[in-house]
Amino acid sequence: VIASYQPDEHYSFIMPPTLTVFERAPDGGRGLTRDMAVRWALEEAGQSYSTHQISFQYLKGPQHKSAHPFGQIPLYQENKLNLFESGAIVLHIAETHKILLPDDANARSRVIAWMFAALSTLEAPIVERSNAYRFEREESWYEARMPRLNERVRYRLRDFSAYLGEKEWLEGEFGAGDVMVIAILRWLKGSELLEEHANLAAYVARGEARPAYKRAFEAQLALFTKASQGA
Amino acid sequence: VIASYQPDEHYSFIMPPTLTVFERAPDGGRGLTRDMAVRWALEEAGQSYSTHQISFQYLKGPQHKSAHPFGQIPLYQENKLNLFESGAIVLHIAETHKILLPDDANARSRVIAWMFAALSTLEAPIVERSNAYRFEREESWYEARMPRLNERVRYRLRDFSAYLGEKEWLEGEFGAGDVMVIAILRWLKGSELLEEHANLAAYVARGEARPAYKRAFEAQLALFTKASQGA
Repeated sequence: VIASYQPDEHYSFIMPPTLTVFERAPDGGRGLTRDMAVRWALEEAGQSYSTHQISFQYLKGPQHKSAHPFGQIPLYQENKLNLFESGAIVLHIAETHKILLPDDANARSRVIAWMFAALSTLEAPIVERSNAYRFEREESWYEARMPRLNERVRYRLRDFSAYLGEKEWLEGEFGAGDVMVIAILRWLKGSELLEEHANLAAYVARGEARPAYKRAFEAQLALFTKASQGA
Repeated sequence: VIASYQPDEHYSFIMPPTLTVFERAPDGGRGLTRDMAVRWALEEAGQSYSTHQISFQYLKGPQHKSAHPFGQIPLYQENKLNLFESGAIVLHIAETHKILLPDDANARSRVIAWMFAALSTLEAPIVERSNAYRFEREESWYEARMPRLNERVRYRLRDFSAYLGEKEWLEGEFGAGDVMVIAILRWLKGSELLEEHANLAAYVARGEARPAYKRAFEAQLALFTKASQGA
């Protein structure tokens, strides 16, 4: 039925996914923006991708919000899919490429639990601490609040360190849970909080030593460097 | 091979799952504890379950932490599976019962994106605001900070309200994304923040009107009422 033929539908199946990222990463290329976990998963999958680099202004404009409800990065586009939330994108990549997830259904659910834990239970106090630094650093209460915020982070890290123990990865093989947890723990680099637990610092270092991580890191750094030089 | 026969393995397959919850819910039975979304999904599935009611003291003790890395509720136990994180538990229930998720792979990924959005993007400012109320209500800076925290919540709700528009549910049929998003939006009940968007208040009310929601709400309320009377 020629009338319903859509060229886009054909080409979309052979096009690699597009990842929308900041044209000028606010983290200085340290791999702390939300596209890092997605890039990492794509590299683990050996899946090439293109990037669409956008400004902060475009981020909050109507065109981007028509594809991403909250006007954020990353946005992952593939075929007819507009996908947001780094955890959901990594899970999608893991499922479509059959990587980073165990075959056993129970083990798979455990890995997904760690993905949610990364983005909720572990991340919540880390983000709250970051928000204080970003938005309230000049306020009179900043110094008084910071020790408490550090304690909230420590409270989670103690439990997580106890769980991890001497395990190499969270649930047997390296998986999507490790990608998400390591990506958020990296927000603590440069504070003393991560280094208080030798096993957590070593766990993050093991993740960063993976070839796929290194390729992902270099790709986001190259983009930042280019943006800085081109300005 | 008789030596490897484990009676537990046999019985576990016919036992309904067990949900570990607070023996005395800190929310006064308003359905704001993290087991609510899981109970709701179980009711949507028509899956019976038993509850294991634990004290705060037990929650943080070694026995519970051996099953739940962060010493939290809910803990979901089924067969040989110990599952934590309400989002992962709801996703597990949706997958095993083939409910609350679309068949189409892209649509399914979008629903999962909303589950992550609920527990991360939407929840983060709501939890930060709740933390201020819980932990810093008596501090000198509380009054000065609260308007900002309200603004961070509003910032997300504006985008979410714009996305939802006049849709009945997030992605076509009622699904796991709606369960998680409505569960977290309910934390705002009693503030003016939710009611500022008529479509969001109506969306939450539609969720609460579902028979499965009502059964879940009554079950957690009954437990709270019993605990209060029995004390």
